[in-house]
Amino acid sequence: MLAEIITIGDEILIGQIVDTNSAWMAQKLNDVGIQIKQITSVSDDQKHILNSLKLAASHADIILITGGLGPTKDDITKKTLTEYFNVGMHEDEIALENVKRIFARFNSPLLDVNIRQAEVLENCITLQNKNGTAPGMWIEHEGKIYISMPGVPFEMMYLMEEEVIPRIISSYKLPSIVHHTILTAGLGESFLANKIEDIENLLPSHIKLAYLPKLGMVRLRLSAYGSDKTVLEKEISLYASQIVNRVGEYVISEVDIPLEKVILDFMEARGLTLATAESCTGGYISHLITQHPGCSRVFLGGAVSYSYELKQIMLGVTPKTLAKYGAVSEETVKEMALGAVKTYKCDYSIAVSGIAGPDGGMPDKPVGTVWIAVANKTKTITQKYQFGNRRAQNIERSAINALVLLFKLLKEDYR
Amino acid sequence: MLAEIITIGDEILIGQIVDTNSAWMAQKLNDVGIQIKQITSVSDDQKHILNSLKLAASHADIILITGGLGPTKDDITKKTLTEYFNVGMHEDEIALENVKRIFARFNSPLLDVNIRQAEVLENCITLQNKNGTAPGMWIEHEGKIYISMPGVPFEMMYLMEEEVIPRIISSYKLPSIVHHTILTAGLGESFLANKIEDIENLLPSHIKLAYLPKLGMVRLRLSAYGSDKTVLEKEISLYASQIVNRVGEYVISEVDIPLEKVILDFMEARGLTLATAESCTGGYISHLITQHPGCSRVFLGGAVSYSYELKQIMLGVTPKTLAKYGAVSEETVKEMALGAVKTYKCDYSIAVSGIAGPDGGMPDKPVGTVWIAVANKTKTITQKYQFGNRRAQNIERSAINALVLLFKLLKEDYR
Repeated sequence: MLAEIITIGDEILIGQIVDTNSAWMAQKLNDVGIQIKQITSVSDDQKHILNSLKLAASHADIILITGGLGPTKDDITKKTLTEYFNVGMHEDEIALENVKRIFARFNSPLLDVNIRQAEVLENCITLQNKNGTAPGMWIEHEGKIYISMPGVPFEMMYLMEEEVIPRIISSYKLPSIVHHTILTAGLGESFLANKIEDIENLLPSHIKLAYLPKLGMVRLRLSAYGSDKTVLEKEISLYASQIVNRVGEYVISEVDIPLEKVILDFMEARGLTLATAESCTGGYISHLITQHPGCSRVFLGGAVSYSYELKQIMLGVTPKTLAKYGAVSEETVKEMALGAVKTYKCDYSIAVSGIAGPDGGMPDKPVGTVWIAVANKTKTITQKYQFGNRRAQNIERSAINALVLLFKLLKEDYR
Repeated sequence: MLAEIITIGDEILIGQIVDTNSAWMAQKLNDVGIQIKQITSVSDDQKHILNSLKLAASHADIILITGGLGPTKDDITKKTLTEYFNVGMHEDEIALENVKRIFARFNSPLLDVNIRQAEVLENCITLQNKNGTAPGMWIEHEGKIYISMPGVPFEMMYLMEEEVIPRIISSYKLPSIVHHTILTAGLGESFLANKIEDIENLLPSHIKLAYLPKLGMVRLRLSAYGSDKTVLEKEISLYASQIVNRVGEYVISEVDIPLEKVILDFMEARGLTLATAESCTGGYISHLITQHPGCSRVFLGGAVSYSYELKQIMLGVTPKTLAKYGAVSEETVKEMALGAVKTYKCDYSIAVSGIAGPDGGMPDKPVGTVWIAVANKTKTITQKYQFGNRRAQNIERSAINALVLLFKLLKEDYR
């Protein structure tokens, strides 16, 4: 079963927003065995939308459309769909009740344009949207299914989870897709490939291997396509274990979860606690950690000690150390890490201090110089890194390397 | 001048990564007056890539391709392009030197696959990639320009800035596109539309207005298309000022920068400092702030006081308050905000405490309950919010509302 995603909106094409909807939808569809053939982003332009719909229908069975359902003039998806299917619209009573309910909650008067939000295509099953005023629409037409949803992420997510996925599952006998991802750190893509070349060469044609490198880490993803999920799972774990046996020292996880979640799970299983002491990463590491539900069982919190003074106040870094070695130094980052362990009474800490750039570089410490320390109550590991000139990338690289370093210490301690 | 972006990679279509490249590229291209007609993400499949190239060439002048240039078997873009153009490949000497340089830096032996990274299409101008081993390629063919770049974001960014954009500028006489964005908070999309309906109706056909809502904020974007940039700028600022006059009380900024950057600029201009005290947002607010170069002139740092104990240690919240009212309460969040001002010696602070979910809800404080306080040395504003059940969304909504509340206090103080 093939699906295609069409996201509609000028804001995507001028780069004002990043299309995060497609990846989220693709994951959900993959989970139930639907392959995405293509993702297409088009402008709020009737002719262009019509063309894309026609093309999508020529190579996919399910066409998911997001965006262009708002109440304002630039939102033309609904009108365009009436032309595409050559049908009219009618008011959906339940959708209208929903619009009224939402406006009543905010004590807002109901405008004509808001009432028109409850209009849907005559040939659709209305997908009621409890998170917003624009209903979704499910349309079966010439053997294909078209699904129109709002582009606002949490409205789309609600409709996908509550309406679209359940309907798809009950509409089709779906094939199986099984993925198995191996997260590695410390070895480049081509070296990994070289080490497992013979395993890769012997993969059957219905199993694919992909290398997904990202800032010091490489994810190896095996994907198996077929009809019997149990058989596929057995096959894929056979090949996965061959790979893990070969490159085990670089393997961080065999579950497709982010590095920080691997660490949280590892620490939670051992009853350990963590705190952070961030300078140049500015809270990004603690943000990564606190994205995960239940992180409070491990993560106590941390300091974003951006200024010199807060490094002293929050973490007890001595003025002498700062004066002698500077904020970006092994000595400072070590005191930050130890200060976190001591002051915040945690088992482990991460400390980062660096020059994220683009300004602030010095001859002996150019932009991209980052010191990282990880500590427990008795041991500290420090490491210096020299990254590039890009601020966002330096912040992200620092965070990933700090987490890799912490995981290294944890594995040393709990071998 | 129309461009189309094709991103290649199974990892995009199974939703394993979010395609952030396209938005970044679209912005850069828009800046020099190139409109993006379509963004298409396709799989690592030769036939599919060939089809997409053909289609793109039928409606765009410039086709930008990212991804599939790695050294491993799943990377097939280069081979596919040789078929598309019906040409061979040859080794690029400078690219090979670059590959050798990179491997020498990491003390890595050079494998055959790495050497082959330096091969480029016979009909291309090589775009040397200092950030990685895969060179970019610039190909002129039957009146169209094709540009192939690696999918790794910082390699693509380097090539775009150093090679692609300068070459495009010198290749074409480009038309102008001028955008003017008005950031608003506090009024829904349809109410804004209603208030400015007459202005919108009188817009000339070469000026478009788009409404971009996002979690409590709406960006109004005017876009003007034409040949004379100065004329367009004059025209667009005329219409922008009409809109601002009409809905001024909701306007946060007329520059298309994020809310936290508006605040940083406002505070820096007045010599003010800021600290944060985050519980449920877990460092996300300080991460938003510290994304911006130069933020250290305003932002001192802050506490991620996730646990009860760290709220006491880091911010001086009293055990009595925590015991009596709980961590998610007006009293606690107020003490957090005042504690930040006092302990971190800043002029303003933001404090957030809430239940991000999906667990941890209580009958009187369901998931999504969030208290926010903003404070200066003499005044505190608190506000309670009731968001939904989604963790990521609750964190983001909390951060945005905290920043909106801070900006409100700042405007009260510096009217």
